[in-house]
Amino acid sequence: MSGFLGRLPIAADVADAAARLETSGIVLETPVLRGEALDEAAGAEVFVKAECLQTTGSFKIRGAYNKLSQISEDKRPNGVVAFSSGNHAQGVARAARLLGMPALIIMPSDAPEVKVDGVKADGAELFLYDRHNENREEIAAQEAEKRGAVIVPSFDDADIVAGQGTVGRELARQVSGLDHVICCAGGGGLITGSALALKDASAATRIWTAEPAGHDDWARSLEADEVLSNEPGTRSICDAILTPEPGQVTWAIGRTLLAGGQVVTDDDVRAAVRFAFRYLKVVLEPGGAAALAVAVRGLPAEMRGTRVGIIATGGNVDATQFAEIISAGV
Amino acid sequence: MSGFLGRLPIAADVADAAARLETSGIVLETPVLRGEALDEAAGAEVFVKAECLQTTGSFKIRGAYNKLSQISEDKRPNGVVAFSSGNHAQGVARAARLLGMPALIIMPSDAPEVKVDGVKADGAELFLYDRHNENREEIAAQEAEKRGAVIVPSFDDADIVAGQGTVGRELARQVSGLDHVICCAGGGGLITGSALALKDASAATRIWTAEPAGHDDWARSLEADEVLSNEPGTRSICDAILTPEPGQVTWAIGRTLLAGGQVVTDDDVRAAVRFAFRYLKVVLEPGGAAALAVAVRGLPAEMRGTRVGIIATGGNVDATQFAEIISAGV
Repeated sequence: MSGFLGRLPIAADVADAAARLETSGIVLETPVLRGEALDEAAGAEVFVKAECLQTTGSFKIRGAYNKLSQISEDKRPNGVVAFSSGNHAQGVARAARLLGMPALIIMPSDAPEVKVDGVKADGAELFLYDRHNENREEIAAQEAEKRGAVIVPSFDDADIVAGQGTVGRELARQVSGLDHVICCAGGGGLITGSALALKDASAATRIWTAEPAGHDDWARSLEADEVLSNEPGTRSICDAILTPEPGQVTWAIGRTLLAGGQVVTDDDVRAAVRFAFRYLKVVLEPGGAAALAVAVRGLPAEMRGTRVGIIATGGNVDATQFAEIISAGV
Repeated sequence: MSGFLGRLPIAADVADAAARLETSGIVLETPVLRGEALDEAAGAEVFVKAECLQTTGSFKIRGAYNKLSQISEDKRPNGVVAFSSGNHAQGVARAARLLGMPALIIMPSDAPEVKVDGVKADGAELFLYDRHNENREEIAAQEAEKRGAVIVPSFDDADIVAGQGTVGRELARQVSGLDHVICCAGGGGLITGSALALKDASAATRIWTAEPAGHDDWARSLEADEVLSNEPGTRSICDAILTPEPGQVTWAIGRTLLAGGQVVTDDDVRAAVRFAFRYLKVVLEPGGAAALAVAVRGLPAEMRGTRVGIIATGGNVDATQFAEIISAGV
């Protein structure tokens, strides 16, 4: 990690990103879902922002398009390089195709097939690496230098954060008076970008991370008010949100804007995926259901009886895994 | 079937129903989903009206609420009786609960568990009958007389048709210039109500039924310009839309407003359920995916390159069946 933080995005950057995405013709305003069964389980009025219904099946297209559309015309032919467990990969691949740029995507060899296929379908070049023994940052740096390409970080970048923040901006416009918002956090691009917009719309809204047990770096960092890392090697079914620690840009925003973290088990997440199938009729991947899991198992006391926004971030899950999860509840 | 047709609903009745539903606080305006993969498969610009995301998991709450909210205060304590393969049952049960009325629901004993559970959860009384050997109309008539209750037909009724038609009304407002709309048809309440609104918004829009092979009574009736029935005993996985023939009210509307019928196989429907899981990230039940199946397998020549609306009507499917369908595509 470099010591240089760079420019920190503000709420106005999220508004600019929203204007850019509006002209893209492909980034959708996703709906907010409601459900009586959910309100009952959660003990509050719950509003689910369904980013699984977004183009490419997750919110990641927002940050990617915001970043790539600002690359100057002369640099576009050299293309972009990105590394990602899958959803960012698909966002970058799609944005690159739409803007006529070549893209190299570096993905772990154990990424869900549905995500690998999505990247291939958008015509990106694929580089598979070993998640446990190779360093994707190094691979990306080497490849970018070779090509003269722009590296597109998956979260720790002002334009990426501002782009993802359009989720929170939409939510604030779709639902007024939210007391709490819960959003999964890996690197923290989505939650911190969204926090910029949500806090701008209503300073009283409290914003919480949702993280898998063993990957609760945000929860612990916020508690300690310093960046803490996860134990290396911890596994979780939430492949989309497994990062070692908060980013630099995202931490700088998050430490002042986030209220704290909610930690969920893999079983909580499976129950939330089943719940979304049964009652909301949307497909969520495990990582995308982490925030919903906090609601489905019953919200903590301080959120009971309030208005709570939940960001459901992605739906790119292999059929075999999804079938297994929903069948376990029968 | 009685020879008395009663009042036929018109577009203004659909508008009145929409106003009623707006005050209900529970009937949602469902989103329209788009997807590049879908446009490619279909060969057209496709807009999917996602009624699976509606309260109770299908459009049926619309007609039920429109009907029940017009029952006079003095008749409400005697309640309502409805028969249904499941989605109408859930719509009536929910509307009755909200309006404080008792409800008796007559369902086939082989209805999907998820639908039976939905009815029970809303506190309705349940009467299970044998789909192949008992007559649900007779059971309903007897029970309604015993209780002094109002029978809520599942489609052949002006208020039900007008209520379901709010789906088409919303679609016409959400997407302009639709050349074609495809909608599944059982009794035909949804498609004919929607046709009233869609034709009112744009007379050039051509409206087509989607039906399972062997249950293509609308397709054949429209072709022959007379009501034709299905061969009794034909089975299909599309449990939600298996009715013997067009209704009287619905036929009177449909024969003049519908362009014709599209027939799909059970395998087409399974492929559409898989497609919705993989690309649209919504859960569809087989019957609810019949119209989508026409698009996913590739639209007929006359619809290619046009703007096509697809109504995806419901998502109440058991986990075991859904797991089986999506796993078959791996």
